[in-house]
Amino acid sequence: MKKIAIIGAGRVAWNLAPALKSCGVEVIEVWSKSRASAEALAAHVGCRCTWGSLDEVTHDADLLVVAVKDTALPDVLCQLHKGREQTLIVHTAGSMPLSLFADAGHERGGVFYPMQTFSKERAVDFARVHLFIEAMQADDVEVLEDLATALTRNPDFVHRSTSAIRRRLHLAAVFACNFTNHCCTLADDVLREAGLDFSVMLPLVDETIAKLHELPPAQAQTGPAIRRDDNVMGVQMAMLADKPEMQKIYTLLSKSIQRYD
Amino acid sequence: MKKIAIIGAGRVAWNLAPALKSCGVEVIEVWSKSRASAEALAAHVGCRCTWGSLDEVTHDADLLVVAVKDTALPDVLCQLHKGREQTLIVHTAGSMPLSLFADAGHERGGVFYPMQTFSKERAVDFARVHLFIEAMQADDVEVLEDLATALTRNPDFVHRSTSAIRRRLHLAAVFACNFTNHCCTLADDVLREAGLDFSVMLPLVDETIAKLHELPPAQAQTGPAIRRDDNVMGVQMAMLADKPEMQKIYTLLSKSIQRYD
Repeated sequence: MKKIAIIGAGRVAWNLAPALKSCGVEVIEVWSKSRASAEALAAHVGCRCTWGSLDEVTHDADLLVVAVKDTALPDVLCQLHKGREQTLIVHTAGSMPLSLFADAGHERGGVFYPMQTFSKERAVDFARVHLFIEAMQADDVEVLEDLATALTRNPDFVHRSTSAIRRRLHLAAVFACNFTNHCCTLADDVLREAGLDFSVMLPLVDETIAKLHELPPAQAQTGPAIRRDDNVMGVQMAMLADKPEMQKIYTLLSKSIQRYD
Repeated sequence: MKKIAIIGAGRVAWNLAPALKSCGVEVIEVWSKSRASAEALAAHVGCRCTWGSLDEVTHDADLLVVAVKDTALPDVLCQLHKGREQTLIVHTAGSMPLSLFADAGHERGGVFYPMQTFSKERAVDFARVHLFIEAMQADDVEVLEDLATALTRNPDFVHRSTSAIRRRLHLAAVFACNFTNHCCTLADDVLREAGLDFSVMLPLVDETIAKLHELPPAQAQTGPAIRRDDNVMGVQMAMLADKPEMQKIYTLLSKSIQRYD
């Protein structure tokens, strides 16, 4: 794998492009719909960029890594296919099937799914990213596996997958990451009203997650719902009286905790 | 503060008793309703124990730390009060008011609330525990503050509080800790059906929480709901077709994420 171009300049591209470069791969170009985004990421990575129409994208890459919005993927793959019939193209989306490539008429498609939460504000360490690989051609699976191993430097974090398993992983990730984060947003809201800062919660949140390295989550559960402490739950529901949406979440999650007991 | 007795042998007592001992306080006794629990904690801490009736509890302690179920607290305080009118007694509950002591006729009551999630399987490092202090007598506030500072070794983690603020902190903690943990239980459930182990999620969960040390939770939010990716959300709801309770949680949390955007 000599030359890679990255299509997209969002959170995934912003983390993946420099990580690929720093593991010895030549990232020759980044492309984004917007010039400003393309230039910002190119400056971040230290490579050239193109923008606007996908016709501008280089034909010199051995691998195109497509990290665009899921909804844009089918169109983007169709356009990239033209004139790059023999180029390996992969997407990075958790829930999008490998069959998108067949739909686009492309025969060298693959998936390179980094199961992680990415932000532009914070560089993710790929040594702690599980990578899920798929490809239409057996040779390409090996190519992607080598690339993933170079990236994460840990063969245990590189997985040959299927679209069905990857979709399930992504669903689990929504619960374990996106919903978990949102519970902290709700806590932040509760604290803010009392003039308290969320930072006071960090040792608690850290410990909650540290426990999961030692105990299955159901066994690590604490709090009024698992204790069936109706008194505290009543007090807390009353405190949320002016927040009916938060009350619904409180009730639903408390019942669900009791269901898994 | 010379001699402390711990009333209760649950998760809080199990962590607090040895931590107090190791910061130089004399833990002279632990008490539990059940003999087996009292003996197990006494062996863990290296002190004597009593069990059964609260009449058995030592009268030699300068401080009684009551870490029993919230529902048992009012009765336990009433019983401990008799013959210990001048002894400082504190409870450790997040949502129970200081006024419980006045209700029990006790004039030297206080609160010593460690805002953390405790398990018997894992020793919490009190250097990472915020402690919230209240007392009926001004002198006792100082006594408890000194004890808290000795325990956590970080004055920034010791807070004079009020019952109203502590109640609010506890509510926030339910969202940030208990509900966060339960979202991981739900993820575990999703993975289990595909024969996958929750350990594959740990780098993602770790990163989700690590981000919160740098970004406010609302700003750290990622995933299909915040991207308003109706396609992925539709796919994921369909995957949960046989789990209506999980679907309700998925819908409610996704809507809530969009509300905070």
